[in-house]
Amino acid sequence: MTQPVRHDAMRARNLELVLGEISRGGPVTRAALAERTGLTKSTVSTLVGALLEAGFLAEQAAVRAGERGRPGVEVSLSGARLASLGLEINVDYLAACVLDLTSTVRRAVRLERDNRREPASEVLRAVAELAASTLAEARELGLTVAGAVLAVSGPVRDGVVLSAPNLGWQNVPVVLDLPLPVSVDNEANLGALGELWFGAGSADFLYVSGEIGIGAGLVVGSRLFRGTGGLAGELGHVLVSPAGPACRCGAVGCLETYAGQEAMLAAAGVGTVDEFAAALAGEDAAALSAAAAAGEALGLALASAVNLMDVDRVVLGGVFGRLFRWLAPAAEAVLTARLGSLRGSVPVLSPSALGDSAATLGAAGRTVHRVLADPAPFLS
Amino acid sequence: MTQPVRHDAMRARNLELVLGEISRGGPVTRAALAERTGLTKSTVSTLVGALLEAGFLAEQAAVRAGERGRPGVEVSLSGARLASLGLEINVDYLAACVLDLTSTVRRAVRLERDNRREPASEVLRAVAELAASTLAEARELGLTVAGAVLAVSGPVRDGVVLSAPNLGWQNVPVVLDLPLPVSVDNEANLGALGELWFGAGSADFLYVSGEIGIGAGLVVGSRLFRGTGGLAGELGHVLVSPAGPACRCGAVGCLETYAGQEAMLAAAGVGTVDEFAAALAGEDAAALSAAAAAGEALGLALASAVNLMDVDRVVLGGVFGRLFRWLAPAAEAVLTARLGSLRGSVPVLSPSALGDSAATLGAAGRTVHRVLADPAPFLS
Repeated sequence: MTQPVRHDAMRARNLELVLGEISRGGPVTRAALAERTGLTKSTVSTLVGALLEAGFLAEQAAVRAGERGRPGVEVSLSGARLASLGLEINVDYLAACVLDLTSTVRRAVRLERDNRREPASEVLRAVAELAASTLAEARELGLTVAGAVLAVSGPVRDGVVLSAPNLGWQNVPVVLDLPLPVSVDNEANLGALGELWFGAGSADFLYVSGEIGIGAGLVVGSRLFRGTGGLAGELGHVLVSPAGPACRCGAVGCLETYAGQEAMLAAAGVGTVDEFAAALAGEDAAALSAAAAAGEALGLALASAVNLMDVDRVVLGGVFGRLFRWLAPAAEAVLTARLGSLRGSVPVLSPSALGDSAATLGAAGRTVHRVLADPAPFLS
Repeated sequence: MTQPVRHDAMRARNLELVLGEISRGGPVTRAALAERTGLTKSTVSTLVGALLEAGFLAEQAAVRAGERGRPGVEVSLSGARLASLGLEINVDYLAACVLDLTSTVRRAVRLERDNRREPASEVLRAVAELAASTLAEARELGLTVAGAVLAVSGPVRDGVVLSAPNLGWQNVPVVLDLPLPVSVDNEANLGALGELWFGAGSADFLYVSGEIGIGAGLVVGSRLFRGTGGLAGELGHVLVSPAGPACRCGAVGCLETYAGQEAMLAAAGVGTVDEFAAALAGEDAAALSAAAAAGEALGLALASAVNLMDVDRVVLGGVFGRLFRWLAPAAEAVLTARLGSLRGSVPVLSPSALGDSAATLGAAGRTVHRVLADPAPFLS
């Protein structure tokens, strides 16, 4: 028995199959592609031709020692034509990066800027300006940017930043005046995807973004867990103590009030993260005790997260990544005390591999993944 | 273009298609089935014949007023032959129930029994005995039980109960001497499925099981969220206060130490849940204050769960369902205070519709769903 499949849908599926094989397996001949995908050689040739023409692929002569016969021509992903733009608005900086289709960073810009001083509309205007100048640079490199994703440090639903207390934003619709499709997502979600694709992530882990605010993104089976309405991962507002200090979110005793950047700096009696890191490196007592207290609070909130979401790896990003060796021991001690006997194991903590770039890379990576997963709309 | 599909796989898929249509849509003629599934009438007839013979379906003459021509014969799910067994070991009872393929409860037994007094092996022997007698009753009703699922109040991985501190169990492999396939799962996960399929659940909700221990099962998009290793939902060990009382799990200040059944009864100065309910109904001050304190602790832990997993409906089961009207107001007040301004909304709390039967029904429902989703293995 057989079933008919519509030609367009079949072509889209086969394009995805061929492109997926090339992007995962690396340079490959048309003959080997036909073998691996089960498609006929002539179908593979047609599809590869279309992908070459659209700039997805490049061709090169393969010279392999020890193989008999003429060397075949191999095709591989091309970074020459298609690209994607990642953008980020954080509390104290704006960032942009351009990834080509081979996931190579072609441009990365970071602009230190206190985004709390201005209304949301001004900050959005500034990020659009940064995006426009980055797009112009991409054009000069011969790149066509397929789409942009913007990371914002607060919960996002349907293109609206519901609340970013650290930016002073409430229900801000994100509209950027740019000549390409732009979507917006939470900074910690995109940081998790950044670490998954390019950094310290694995198929299952919790990414924690420590900045002025604290967020988290859970990856299960290589997919982001978003919860019912897309707002999962608000680790910064998980309870550490019902008798704790007031949080900007309106609650008390949230993790952010203990381990947010400002709380840590205040406890250490320093003004900047650089000063904090220097004081820690110099074994300053106040700094060490501030880091231990923040690590302990982080451990308490993470223990609740592990109990609820069953996590066995945690990647600490942002400031937490930078201060990892001072925060992690206290956090690990709390995790062991709270989880060891019930679960028989304690999640492994590791520092981010991408630092402050995680969210911007994840944002840019989203479009690369989207284009590779469904190339048909980008072919003429 | 067409693609070949193996005959066996095609038949299995078509059986599932036909059975799914009947189980969701109710009684239907073969002609209408062919129309709805897109299969030929002769294919539908063959498949329906096989499902009738295997006892999945029953036939009845449809008499419809106002329709012209001969009345067609309709087929519908049959409860006469295939069935499934749900089992539960809780701290203070054992339970069993038999569901037929129409999800009708054909037998339900509950045995009050303090399962903390005996070693795990004795408790497993007792539940196997209960299962055997229930299976014998099912046989007398002409039912063939396709499989059993056992609910246990503790985290379960690969058939092993990792830790059930309230039962005194640690790393207990579950092996029941029964003549059918038995699997084991966490009681709160199965309670969530019970409420999803038969009770107060919806496509997205968190089920909370309040007993001597407290567990939770998260349903997102009508599927259970299990986390990385299947241990998600340990709400009972989420932090309420770092200065709180010691918990049996080895940590301090867990939700169970505030809102577990024993903590509530002790705070109210009563010995049983019946006495607690009576004291609350009589507006006894100690009981009211114990319920408010437990509700507040529940609200604190739930707020962390909502922040992490993005939940907008919570179904309170077990003792929490029974005491809902005394616990819920305090829990709701805490949820509003902690979540209102960040999320703009607060999850709706509602009581379980199934009471203590949720987990046993979910356990039995699992096999019914499995059989309906893939009937082929049960056909000769």
